[in-house]
Amino acid sequence: MHMTSPFSVAVAGASGYAGGEVLRLLLGHPDVRIGALTGGSNAGQPLGALQPHLVPLADRVLEETTPETLAGHDVVFLGLPHGQSAPIAEALGDDTIVVDCGADFRLVDGADWEKFYGSAHAGTWPYGLPELAGQRDQLRGARRIAVPGCYPTISTLTFAPAVAAGLVTDDLTVVAASGTSGAGKAPKPHLLGSEVMGNASAYGVGGVHRHTPEIRQNLGRVTDADLKVGFTPLLVPMARGILATCTAPLAGDVTAEEAYEVYAKAYADEPFVHLLPSGMWPATQSVLGSNAVHLQVTVDEAAHRLVAVGAVDNLAKGTGGAAVQCMNLALGLDETTGLSTVGLAP
Amino acid sequence: MHMTSPFSVAVAGASGYAGGEVLRLLLGHPDVRIGALTGGSNAGQPLGALQPHLVPLADRVLEETTPETLAGHDVVFLGLPHGQSAPIAEALGDDTIVVDCGADFRLVDGADWEKFYGSAHAGTWPYGLPELAGQRDQLRGARRIAVPGCYPTISTLTFAPAVAAGLVTDDLTVVAASGTSGAGKAPKPHLLGSEVMGNASAYGVGGVHRHTPEIRQNLGRVTDADLKVGFTPLLVPMARGILATCTAPLAGDVTAEEAYEVYAKAYADEPFVHLLPSGMWPATQSVLGSNAVHLQVTVDEAAHRLVAVGAVDNLAKGTGGAAVQCMNLALGLDETTGLSTVGLAP
Amino acid sequence: MHMTSPFSVAVAGASGYAGGEVLRLLLGHPDVRIGALTGGSNAGQPLGALQPHLVPLADRVLEETTPETLAGHDVVFLGLPHGQSAPIAEALGDDTIVVDCGADFRLVDGADWEKFYGSAHAGTWPYGLPELAGQRDQLRGARRIAVPGCYPTISTLTFAPAVAAGLVTDDLTVVAASGTSGAGKAPKPHLLGSEVMGNASAYGVGGVHRHTPEIRQNLGRVTDADLKVGFTPLLVPMARGILATCTAPLAGDVTAEEAYEVYAKAYADEPFVHLLPSGMWPATQSVLGSNAVHLQVTVDEAAHRLVAVGAVDNLAKGTGGAAVQCMNLALGLDETTGLSTVGLAP
Amino acid sequence: MHMTSPFSVAVAGASGYAGGEVLRLLLGHPDVRIGALTGGSNAGQPLGALQPHLVPLADRVLEETTPETLAGHDVVFLGLPHGQSAPIAEALGDDTIVVDCGADFRLVDGADWEKFYGSAHAGTWPYGLPELAGQRDQLRGARRIAVPGCYPTISTLTFAPAVAAGLVTDDLTVVAASGTSGAGKAPKPHLLGSEVMGNASAYGVGGVHRHTPEIRQNLGRVTDADLKVGFTPLLVPMARGILATCTAPLAGDVTAEEAYEVYAKAYADEPFVHLLPSGMWPATQSVLGSNAVHLQVTVDEAAHRLVAVGAVDNLAKGTGGAAVQCMNLALGLDETTGLSTVGLAP
Repeated sequence: MHMTSPFSVAVAGASGYAGGEVLRLLLGHPDVRIGALTGGSNAGQPLGALQPHLVPLADRVLEETTPETLAGHDVVFLGLPHGQSAPIAEALGDDTIVVDCGADFRLVDGADWEKFYGSAHAGTWPYGLPELAGQRDQLRGARRIAVPGCYPTISTLTFAPAVAAGLVTDDLTVVAASGTSGAGKAPKPHLLGSEVMGNASAYGVGGVHRHTPEIRQNLGRVTDADLKVGFTPLLVPMARGILATCTAPLAGDVTAEEAYEVYAKAYADEPFVHLLPSGMWPATQSVLGSNAVHLQVTVDEAAHRLVAVGAVDNLAKGTGGAAVQCMNLALGLDETTGLSTVGLAP
Repeated sequence: MHMTSPFSVAVAGASGYAGGEVLRLLLGHPDVRIGALTGGSNAGQPLGALQPHLVPLADRVLEETTPETLAGHDVVFLGLPHGQSAPIAEALGDDTIVVDCGADFRLVDGADWEKFYGSAHAGTWPYGLPELAGQRDQLRGARRIAVPGCYPTISTLTFAPAVAAGLVTDDLTVVAASGTSGAGKAPKPHLLGSEVMGNASAYGVGGVHRHTPEIRQNLGRVTDADLKVGFTPLLVPMARGILATCTAPLAGDVTAEEAYEVYAKAYADEPFVHLLPSGMWPATQSVLGSNAVHLQVTVDEAAHRLVAVGAVDNLAKGTGGAAVQCMNLALGLDETTGLSTVGLAP
Repeated sequence: MHMTSPFSVAVAGASGYAGGEVLRLLLGHPDVRIGALTGGSNAGQPLGALQPHLVPLADRVLEETTPETLAGHDVVFLGLPHGQSAPIAEALGDDTIVVDCGADFRLVDGADWEKFYGSAHAGTWPYGLPELAGQRDQLRGARRIAVPGCYPTISTLTFAPAVAAGLVTDDLTVVAASGTSGAGKAPKPHLLGSEVMGNASAYGVGGVHRHTPEIRQNLGRVTDADLKVGFTPLLVPMARGILATCTAPLAGDVTAEEAYEVYAKAYADEPFVHLLPSGMWPATQSVLGSNAVHLQVTVDEAAHRLVAVGAVDNLAKGTGGAAVQCMNLALGLDETTGLSTVGLAP
Repeated sequence: MHMTSPFSVAVAGASGYAGGEVLRLLLGHPDVRIGALTGGSNAGQPLGALQPHLVPLADRVLEETTPETLAGHDVVFLGLPHGQSAPIAEALGDDTIVVDCGADFRLVDGADWEKFYGSAHAGTWPYGLPELAGQRDQLRGARRIAVPGCYPTISTLTFAPAVAAGLVTDDLTVVAASGTSGAGKAPKPHLLGSEVMGNASAYGVGGVHRHTPEIRQNLGRVTDADLKVGFTPLLVPMARGILATCTAPLAGDVTAEEAYEVYAKAYADEPFVHLLPSGMWPATQSVLGSNAVHLQVTVDEAAHRLVAVGAVDNLAKGTGGAAVQCMNLALGLDETTGLSTVGLAP
């Protein structure tokens, strides 16, 4: 590896929400130089017309998303629709670090992929959730990284310590309230401001959301138990943020204090996972724009259930922040470079 | 009963959200005449300064909340802080219909009351959820009515058919995302617009929210099973509406179609409960300002769980609409008089 | 005129925001029977899939928008894109009352039309703002009605008394903050919830918005002065509502009290225009879903300017409510039938 | 001046919005060390309980706001209620740089102060708007700095080039739509989320808002003309951001292109003022959390008016960002240290 700082990075899909968030964070990263920016139908337009919040890049013109425009960079971030990452990655070769914000390479089980995505499985890359058992080591120096889905990121981090410690062993339920940016920038009637403001709704109910097998896969990495996971996503009126309520019947008797201790130990050394003081519950506003995950856990004694709640910014730690965090690991930089645990509130 | 239309009604707590909503609905009710309006610290002010949306009542001045100002009406609605309803109701006598929007007379079990409210139990009145087995008959001609809590209303209606039919028999989980008006009009820092906009948060987690025993009490009326109910309320950035996600392990094998049929039958004759066409999921915007409850149900086969979702306007059918619906029953009017299933969207 | 109650009404464009709002109000109107509902690309779908808040019409299937499907009704409401109303109206004949929620027949001056809409002028119909000098009489018994634009409705009503009384005679400025539903239901990227929440923006600045000549035309009906009107629309994060700030240099010396009196007299007999008590300023939440307009006026002595502020629900009094109000006049009904001044707050 | 990096800084009022924003920015500043944090009624509490988004400071406990706790720092930021800054500043002495986020020392004219604030004038400090003619030089090495009000910041920057160039010479009108955080964290009923969501309202209308004389004072620094300024603030449903629409009759003939050029030249060297490409209009989302101001200007030919629109984050460049920018100047650091022009969108 002959790369040296500043590392050159390219972003494919720079006009979308994932690409825009990667760029927002890279603009504050001390060790990178932003190279090619590409778009689909927006190629030829200046970024300032599409992402006016990225002032320093306002005059940069989007190129076509092709292997040629992306070649020659140390790192390439992909923020592309499903199915488009594989041919790009193949063409780029192993000298380039490819960080895919899309879903193509997240799932290990090809049957899961085919069932939920309805196409041929492209393969499996190192999974970009360093906080999940064993993943960090695979990400150091990696040349290919699959950034996790936003719901799986927060569901996994919120449930993992309880699952790993055997506090809960089955019948896991996740109800996750999400802001609208997770649905992307392609305009659809139900995502109009008029439809989402003043509105909370459920969608993808009954185990059919594509992030369901990814959550199960992740939690399966910290237990031998054969977990059933029920996942219900909600859309709530905010642009960013996911609040995940994770609950399951207790496997045995455990107090709230003991559960808290399990979480405190599990994340004691994690720079981006913040277990709140006992009694405080996560709020998405506190993690807005940051790479932090806020967690809390307790025990509902009457219902004999564990209840853990997690908050994440779906675009930051849930996508673009994770991408940068993983790039840091791949490049051998300090994992936290250019990332922050400070949220934008109020 | 010598009352005749138009019936005279008084509203205590007319400057609050519950009182305001009762008045909003009464202004469209053909059989009532609005009499005394009372307030606490706001007594002496014109309603127009406090509830500017109630234009026809703008010049009405709030009186003190006393038995004297409320006496002499056919119906008195109470929108008062906990603990203040009992003395008022006692003083009014049995000739007056008293509809209490507060919690004081909802719970049957005095031990539950004391545990969750921390004061002496005032008693139990007929429970104002006509759609719950057996309640409608008790409400016809009633002189005292306890309007249900907003969370219990939607949680009960969303879960009841599945519980009654034995599709689920234990380990019930409710995660309910609520708008902020449920927390009332008393200003508190965490309810400021700056704090709630762009924010989703959890509170009252772990079985400690006061509506928990009320949900359990209601569902206990449709089953002999000894249910455990885990309830987690969320605050999301909207003024009105609750979306309740209700999920539990299936007691046996049942298909989504069978579950749907159970719900269709259970609510076939209910004027305000609307089971959506299969595949559509409830959205709170659709019930805004209306007395309708929107429901959908399915089965998550992989997780072997039933998932039902319900939407309600917490101030309308969740409080003021229920109050008017119950008044209609108490007065012998058509139950739907002055109420609508048409929501305000977008 | 041989029509008798209940009058049959049809709605073209029933899946859009204007059509949906007309239907929401017609469902509470005692003298109509809802007939044909038509749509463009949505023809063939049940209304319940498109407008789930209109529960009583959930099973009605949209027909194609043709003169044939719309024929045979007493009243036809048109909620169609620009340019589509003329051929429909022509085919329907004069026995049918046609109420057009679109812009085609609002402007008197063909040159204005061509400049701002870029197409041939279709003509001019009676203008559906009964509160504007002289218009009410033209609307009684009318067979064709052009419903005003939402911005012109509130700008006109907020400025008209001051202009008519000569308090201000030129250099009128309107800055109007609007919710997003005014932009319609066709999905465009800048109208996505993710883009509009947490965001205030200006658009159509510099006198180029299509409602500019309509505002000037309206105010020209109450003065002989040759007015210059500067209009700036803003998009703010709410689904409904317009707040218009109307300000102009005072033509002479006038006190705030005198200005208030001018407004009080001008609207003393108007059922839907509500001048707030002195010192209270309009808020769009107070008129949500209602046909009311809330106004306030004062004088900025240091700046020697009149400042008037108005609030309206752009979909209700700003479109669908005005349409129903005009239908009432056309049918000879009480003008307020089926309409309310009670808003939905909070 | 013997201070050396890292400079020690204290923040009085650390639990409020201004103090919290200063801390958010200081946490990303390379040349400071965060010392004492003080609060009023919140003294004794850990910051994590009050500002959970400031994770790295979660365990820091608030001290009392006294000269003693604040003494010994190189820089002290004051985020205090009106009237409390003077005694603190006096006690701190001239070795300490005091940056006041409150209003006490902004106005030059004592009569203006007394009229709008109703108390004795404390004095005048260098005014913390480096982009305003002549101010930057006074801020370099300053020991006392008055951070501008949020409305004056954006109103001044949006209007100043046109006023300075004589494009407009009188009858200036500002209508500024603001998020709710500008009103602070003290809970009041009209600032509740239930009241502000789905709501746009006007307040402080008629020249009575306290920021009115400050705007006039600022614009008076770039012209000899005796300006009348009409200012109307609006509250719109978002936590952060101000969008200011600034319009005035043209003094002579000028084209939109010429006006644009005036603005382009005026701000060519300003690091934080971003004139958008012609045809794009500012949106507050683009400057969220950043120190950037976005501007656009045009000419309304029919109305013969200049229209300029500006967007700012009221808490960032509008308060905390300006405070840090001024600290940089006072300390002799590069003015942009620790500040960014990159907004958080969507």
